[in-house]
Amino acid sequence: MEIKVLHQVMDWNEDVSEEVKSTLSSHHICMVNVMGSPGAGKTTLITSLINKLKKDYRAGVIEGDIAGQVDAERIASLGVPTVQLNTDGACHIEAMSIQHILPELSLDDLDVIFVENIGNLVCPAEFRIGESVRITILSIPEGDDKVEKYPLMFTDTDCLALNKYDMMPYFDFDESRVCANYETVNPDAPLFRISSRTGEGVQDLADFIADKIEEAKA
Amino acid sequence: MEIKVLHQVMDWNEDVSEEVKSTLSSHHICMVNVMGSPGAGKTTLITSLINKLKKDYRAGVIEGDIAGQVDAERIASLGVPTVQLNTDGACHIEAMSIQHILPELSLDDLDVIFVENIGNLVCPAEFRIGESVRITILSIPEGDDKVEKYPLMFTDTDCLALNKYDMMPYFDFDESRVCANYETVNPDAPLFRISSRTGEGVQDLADFIADKIEEAKA
Repeated sequence: MEIKVLHQVMDWNEDVSEEVKSTLSSHHICMVNVMGSPGAGKTTLITSLINKLKKDYRAGVIEGDIAGQVDAERIASLGVPTVQLNTDGACHIEAMSIQHILPELSLDDLDVIFVENIGNLVCPAEFRIGESVRITILSIPEGDDKVEKYPLMFTDTDCLALNKYDMMPYFDFDESRVCANYETVNPDAPLFRISSRTGEGVQDLADFIADKIEEAKA
Repeated sequence: MEIKVLHQVMDWNEDVSEEVKSTLSSHHICMVNVMGSPGAGKTTLITSLINKLKKDYRAGVIEGDIAGQVDAERIASLGVPTVQLNTDGACHIEAMSIQHILPELSLDDLDVIFVENIGNLVCPAEFRIGESVRITILSIPEGDDKVEKYPLMFTDTDCLALNKYDMMPYFDFDESRVCANYETVNPDAPLFRISSRTGEGVQDLADFIADKIEEAKA
């Protein structure tokens, strides 16, 4: 019974996701869904990407959190339009929430919207929210077994950012294990080795996102 | 509608959780529900605790994973009875799953059962599984804002293990922020500073669990 209900909810979610996608497409906006564990570095990465992209593109942010607005305050300090979405306990963002929140942003003045999803390696991957691009972040301290243990998050993404790469010397992290597993489940998606803190590798990921923004503008 | 369904499922879960608790109680077994983000160090902590407790108590493990059995193999190598519970995509363990799996363990030969929940700071906290004790693990690399952002996981636990404490020098982690927030939402529950890797602080947590095992035996 439980599975059946989940299925209904997700069918509904897919429909709304397509509506959101259509709205964004009519405004030539690229939406980027940023997913990863709690503490993987989602907010810092979004901040770094916006800093790289802002000379060419106008960015907005939807900041998802179960509670609070700590991250939204960090993002808003960059001077970009930011909306806080509190899920009030829910472990992922659904398309309906994005649909409700979009009118809060001035869509004619944006080229890209970053959505920071709830910190969670499971549920967010199951719910499309109208995005054009998905970034899954895995940080080095989380360990090298995550692709095997949370497969959907790595299968159903457009790229993988290996974050906190500068911490590699301090952790037992077998990079070849992650690369091999990722290539098996998602052979065509790129992998970026980055440190949002030091800036290492962020430009390559920013270039990847810039291509997606150009596709949405075309 | 979605919230209503979730509520029904959780009511049902509470009933089954009480049944599991009653079964365990009749066998004088303490069940420990270990929760935390992906990569927080749940498996390693369970391994360390079993090594500390095994001279006095007989331990079993239920190893929850969405997919695979990487962790179960690590635990089983300790020579303790281990059952793998694959949730096949679900982001938390429910009491019904524990009820189904208990007959796989020889309950008359156990004093404590550790359940490693799915790596997730959200949903596991919402579902009781018949446990006597909850351990929430927060690892230093995850950051110092997690109590504010994932409140239920820290409110509804019997203790907090600050894990990977040996990594403190490499991360910007304001310990006083975590302590203050934790004390606000859960004033009576202890906090343990530990490193499962170096062994630092694990004995204190093992002593805490030993007291709970004694309570279950009484």
